[in-house]
Amino acid sequence: VKTEIITIGEELLKGVRANTNAAFLGERLTGMGAVVTRSATVADDSAAIESELAAAMERSDLVVTTGGLGVTADDRTRRAVARVLGTKLVLDEDVLKGIRTRFESRGRQMPEINVSQAMVPEGARTIANRRGTAPGLVFEREGTLVFALPGPPSELRAMFTSFVAPYLEGAGLRRLVHERILRTTGLPESEIAGRIGPIAKRLARTDVAYLPSVRGVDLRITGRGSTAEEAAITADSSLEKIASRLEPFVYATGPDTLEKVVGYTLAMRGATVCVAESCTGGGLGRSITRVPGSSEYFKGGVIAYSDELKKRLLKVKATTLKTHGAVSEQTAREMAAGARAACRADFGLAVTGIAGPGGGTDEKPIGTVHIAVAGPDSVRHRHYRFAGGRSAVRAGATQAALELLRRTLMEIADD
Amino acid sequence: VKTEIITIGEELLKGVRANTNAAFLGERLTGMGAVVTRSATVADDSAAIESELAAAMERSDLVVTTGGLGVTADDRTRRAVARVLGTKLVLDEDVLKGIRTRFESRGRQMPEINVSQAMVPEGARTIANRRGTAPGLVFEREGTLVFALPGPPSELRAMFTSFVAPYLEGAGLRRLVHERILRTTGLPESEIAGRIGPIAKRLARTDVAYLPSVRGVDLRITGRGSTAEEAAITADSSLEKIASRLEPFVYATGPDTLEKVVGYTLAMRGATVCVAESCTGGGLGRSITRVPGSSEYFKGGVIAYSDELKKRLLKVKATTLKTHGAVSEQTAREMAAGARAACRADFGLAVTGIAGPGGGTDEKPIGTVHIAVAGPDSVRHRHYRFAGGRSAVRAGATQAALELLRRTLMEIADD
Repeated sequence: VKTEIITIGEELLKGVRANTNAAFLGERLTGMGAVVTRSATVADDSAAIESELAAAMERSDLVVTTGGLGVTADDRTRRAVARVLGTKLVLDEDVLKGIRTRFESRGRQMPEINVSQAMVPEGARTIANRRGTAPGLVFEREGTLVFALPGPPSELRAMFTSFVAPYLEGAGLRRLVHERILRTTGLPESEIAGRIGPIAKRLARTDVAYLPSVRGVDLRITGRGSTAEEAAITADSSLEKIASRLEPFVYATGPDTLEKVVGYTLAMRGATVCVAESCTGGGLGRSITRVPGSSEYFKGGVIAYSDELKKRLLKVKATTLKTHGAVSEQTAREMAAGARAACRADFGLAVTGIAGPGGGTDEKPIGTVHIAVAGPDSVRHRHYRFAGGRSAVRAGATQAALELLRRTLMEIADD
Repeated sequence: VKTEIITIGEELLKGVRANTNAAFLGERLTGMGAVVTRSATVADDSAAIESELAAAMERSDLVVTTGGLGVTADDRTRRAVARVLGTKLVLDEDVLKGIRTRFESRGRQMPEINVSQAMVPEGARTIANRRGTAPGLVFEREGTLVFALPGPPSELRAMFTSFVAPYLEGAGLRRLVHERILRTTGLPESEIAGRIGPIAKRLARTDVAYLPSVRGVDLRITGRGSTAEEAAITADSSLEKIASRLEPFVYATGPDTLEKVVGYTLAMRGATVCVAESCTGGGLGRSITRVPGSSEYFKGGVIAYSDELKKRLLKVKATTLKTHGAVSEQTAREMAAGARAACRADFGLAVTGIAGPGGGTDEKPIGTVHIAVAGPDSVRHRHYRFAGGRSAVRAGATQAALELLRRTLMEIADD
């Protein structure tokens, strides 16, 4: 089912707010098996809506619009629909009564301006709006089904769930796709493409999308099938094949964050962790404690932003700082061991680095980060050079620290 | 200047993420005086991009696209541009050299797949990408100017600011509107509306938009004028009138974050600060250290997520924890004073609270947060009850702690 979305509203074009309605519709329609080929935004202008709607109906089997049904002067969707249908707007007494009742139930009188919302294009049916006054519209023409829905997100969502989704299901649109998420960290997108490109192309009935961020690359694997079960089996089997090429960089085969995976692993083993942070300034502890219930395995730690605190609270040796510098393998190791001792945790996780924009040298450029994890038996270390600005380096360092802890807990060697 | 935006990417159609690029471009282009009449999203499909681009160029004076310039198999914008121009893709040796150098500067070899990013349509010029490997493109045809920009938001924003905006200014597109930002924290949107609603309506040639978040409410004040100077004068004068109604909740009359304002104030006074964090788990330190150069005034601190560390590292008394609990005024005060002593800083800033979803009681419901700041002479305390989920409570607590420090430094009393 070839589908287009049209969102109507000047504030969307001006970027006053992000277009969450288009995202909502895209997700729900895709989830039902529709193929959204295009999404357009136009102003509350009757002519613009009309030409966009007519072109979309020409190209597609299903068109969903949002917005332009309200009472203010710049609302124009009803008029555009009437023009597309070649009919006129007529007063629907039932709709008018519904709007009037809605106002009266709140002890208010309906303003005269709301009468316009009861004007319905001939040839279209109305859809009841339980969250607002503007009814939606549905009509079919030359094999194309069109829904015109209200713009306020709560009204749109309620109307989609209560009317549009069951209507489409009744018309035979079912979920024939199944999506899985594979989350990786530590490999750039181009390297992932190199590793899985050849097999991804050969996977039957599967689409693979790359979703990169500073924390790593997620892969969305979509399986198709002629039944929902078939689609799920396809997605699962493709995911397995792809994951096997990306080990040990895969930390989740579902939507879990890395901090959640690490937290779960710690909790399962009854182990505790603490942190020693320099360049992340608290961001690592914040990530760990984003997970509800993290107090079970997270004791806390020390933000040692100054060398003074590295010495005083973490017992990093003055000679280490002097000989190797605050951003060094040796300092990271002593920070991790020092935090572990100070907090009496099973694992101490330390980060020290240069986030920029200042502080870089030829030998230690911006993005240099040393990470260490101290455990009961030994201290493990890795170092990195992250690209990007201050916040990308800090996010990358946080993720890399969590990943080093994950690998240590799972007994996975360095790559 | 009639303008259209085309965002490219299947994940946008599928609603995997909201289209923040379209919002960014809409806002910036509108701010420069362009009239955005249409915004469309299409998949990474060469034919779809080509037909959308050709139609937009037909209708408009300016077209900006984002996405479809990366290396993975589903990237197609370069090819579409070549088709629209009726030319072919040729290898640009300079661009290739730049991409290669970018990889080498990180000690890595350029993967072969990246060569495709150096293929440039004849008749288009490239735009350097300082944040990534894919160069942008700019070309003009039959009076329509087209920019093809990368999809990753950080790359798009950097390229827009450093290249597109000055290019458009050079081409005569000027800002006849002037925007100012007024940032507040501690007042809900409805209360702000009550305080400034009456005067906001009377302000000539001024639009006021509310931008609420968990950290507070920003107001975007847009002045209009027949010259850039006039617009700026209007915006400045309106901002002043609005700000006077909202004191002392205004922390910035520009884009500065609260942590930047606080950092600047500390640096000006040569004072230092440290933190003691419980429910924020490191988020307060992370906020403070988001500011480049924060090592000048931030020493570090203690993440005391467990009661054990509150006692051991912050010297909170066992009797205090037993009598009043970890989330109490007394504990917050002792944490602040303890951090100040442990870190030898001028100010110690402490947060303890219940972020949820667990841990709430009738007496101390989820969202209860105690904040204290210990200074040379005394310890100041406030308590809050934040609405929303775990992340909203933690963000609110972080912001409130920074605000209490700001008010202490500025000698502003509680409201």
